[in-house]
Amino acid sequence: MTETAYDVIAIGNAIVDIIGRCDDAFLAANEAPKGHMRLVDADTSASLYAKMGPAVEISGGSAANTMVGLASFGGRAAFIGKIATDEFGRIFQHDIKAAGVAFDTPPAAGGPPTSRSLILVTPDGERTMNTFLGISTHLDHGEVGEDLVSRSAIVYLEGYLFDRPEAKAAFRQAVSIAKSSGRRVALTLSDGFCVNRHRDEFLGLIRSGVDILFANESEITALYQATTFDEAARKTAEDIKLAALTRSSKGSVILADGQSISIPVEPVAKLVDTTGAGDLYAAGFLFGLSKGYPLDIAGRLGSLAAAEIISHIGARPEVRLEQLGRAKGLIK
Amino acid sequence: MTETAYDVIAIGNAIVDIIGRCDDAFLAANEAPKGHMRLVDADTSASLYAKMGPAVEISGGSAANTMVGLASFGGRAAFIGKIATDEFGRIFQHDIKAAGVAFDTPPAAGGPPTSRSLILVTPDGERTMNTFLGISTHLDHGEVGEDLVSRSAIVYLEGYLFDRPEAKAAFRQAVSIAKSSGRRVALTLSDGFCVNRHRDEFLGLIRSGVDILFANESEITALYQATTFDEAARKTAEDIKLAALTRSSKGSVILADGQSISIPVEPVAKLVDTTGAGDLYAAGFLFGLSKGYPLDIAGRLGSLAAAEIISHIGARPEVRLEQLGRAKGLIK
Repeated sequence: MTETAYDVIAIGNAIVDIIGRCDDAFLAANEAPKGHMRLVDADTSASLYAKMGPAVEISGGSAANTMVGLASFGGRAAFIGKIATDEFGRIFQHDIKAAGVAFDTPPAAGGPPTSRSLILVTPDGERTMNTFLGISTHLDHGEVGEDLVSRSAIVYLEGYLFDRPEAKAAFRQAVSIAKSSGRRVALTLSDGFCVNRHRDEFLGLIRSGVDILFANESEITALYQATTFDEAARKTAEDIKLAALTRSSKGSVILADGQSISIPVEPVAKLVDTTGAGDLYAAGFLFGLSKGYPLDIAGRLGSLAAAEIISHIGARPEVRLEQLGRAKGLIK
Repeated sequence: MTETAYDVIAIGNAIVDIIGRCDDAFLAANEAPKGHMRLVDADTSASLYAKMGPAVEISGGSAANTMVGLASFGGRAAFIGKIATDEFGRIFQHDIKAAGVAFDTPPAAGGPPTSRSLILVTPDGERTMNTFLGISTHLDHGEVGEDLVSRSAIVYLEGYLFDRPEAKAAFRQAVSIAKSSGRRVALTLSDGFCVNRHRDEFLGLIRSGVDILFANESEITALYQATTFDEAARKTAEDIKLAALTRSSKGSVILADGQSISIPVEPVAKLVDTTGAGDLYAAGFLFGLSKGYPLDIAGRLGSLAAAEIISHIGARPEVRLEQLGRAKGLIK
């Protein structure tokens, strides 16, 4: 195998988050399913924005957040995703490149605007996402550079891409290139509702082409239509060699070759906003894997990154994760 | 006098802040004067943005921040400022209205983009601002509604407006309307460099038309070309009936009718970003004045709001200031 240029290349939706606070009644009144991501059209996005409180704009996108986290740990990260030639596109491009992630997908010249997610954070810190996919759906397989993917040790894919046929083609193309180049494929299931929309396809992919799976409790139980986490974990272990299952305040469980390793959460002084918790867990775990660290250390790096991200608004780290990892003695 | 519709109406630059972190060396390499605001043109703004790290976008603008703070305390606030018909203009408009501030200045149909300030925050929490004024400079006196100003108990003006002749005309128009309606005029000096640019005009205005003055230590010493704060304060007291002078970690001093009242700072667990500290101090003080509270209580409300704003990134409050004020027993 040739040398790798990147530890991980991710393919995902290129999104700017618009994050504001609300109460549970606002979610209910606007039919936003608490703790989940729902897709909305341009009109719904505009009318919800008009109703929601003051907000801040921070670059987001699940897999993009993970790559920024990986780079913040000191990993070599690249991202493929579609932006438009507009202000939000410039913000997304600036932030991911300034974070040290390679990002060269050409912006679209016309078409819908850059994707945005209206994220409503309730007083308990839980985030509820209302995503207008915009130009993100225009990512096609031509955008997945064979050279880029084949030179990355791991290709990381977000399940959200399955919500649009064009992006799904890009997704499959990336898996095919990775496999033929002897690289590993990682998948995050993204959201329980998203799993329900694409269960069979996800299962097929996991059984045939995925080497590393990330999921939270609601996603993995949705995938296996299991009634308990333990049942879902048992089925996961039968299907895949390596999985990291996150359980919010209960920590995470790593399943690998018949082993089950429990990872504690990293305590936080105050839970502010859960946006990006899973994305940053994946960043820490992937960084640990890329360094060849033991799985429990990789998991603890995931917990550490998740703890940083939920202690402030937004899904991009506010401090250098490498420094946090060194301070904890997890990175030597 | 007719009933008032607003406790305070403010006129200022309508700005979206782009806030990122950097070290002192980055400031020096980019000739950004630490702790100050400098005006930059579109090209400098673009090239500095390309060089700076990942950022977040949060609505800003000095007087606009103050009005959002006033509304967050439960005060009746209005704002006049110019935005363009673009994404940043929509963000500014959404955020200020969603915060409960009346804002009806029509967006410009063409011309430069909405103003933006690249704010660089150093590890000590100090912010350094690089502002591209864009459409803000196109605010003219026609935009200052006589009805709106005459129905506001206080008209609050930011010194930054003096940086452009057109805005200065709007500024003078507002003072004239307020005076002829028997309303009070408040002025914030905005920035030490800004004071140096317009010293004589500021002094003339303070001696003739300003009822309430806000300034920090560097601004007030610049205004009076004083060598010490005490000297500047003495001269201030000769020129104006009511002034609130802020001194960062040393608290603030309120000068009123020969009295000098020292106000302590409100302690913060961690200083994150000083952006908006002065703006929010003014919000608390103006709220206290509008409620007829004693000056020391008004000052402590200022300290409280400033403490909230410097404990996180951005110059817009993340919690309801009215609740903070009640919890402290400052608002009954």
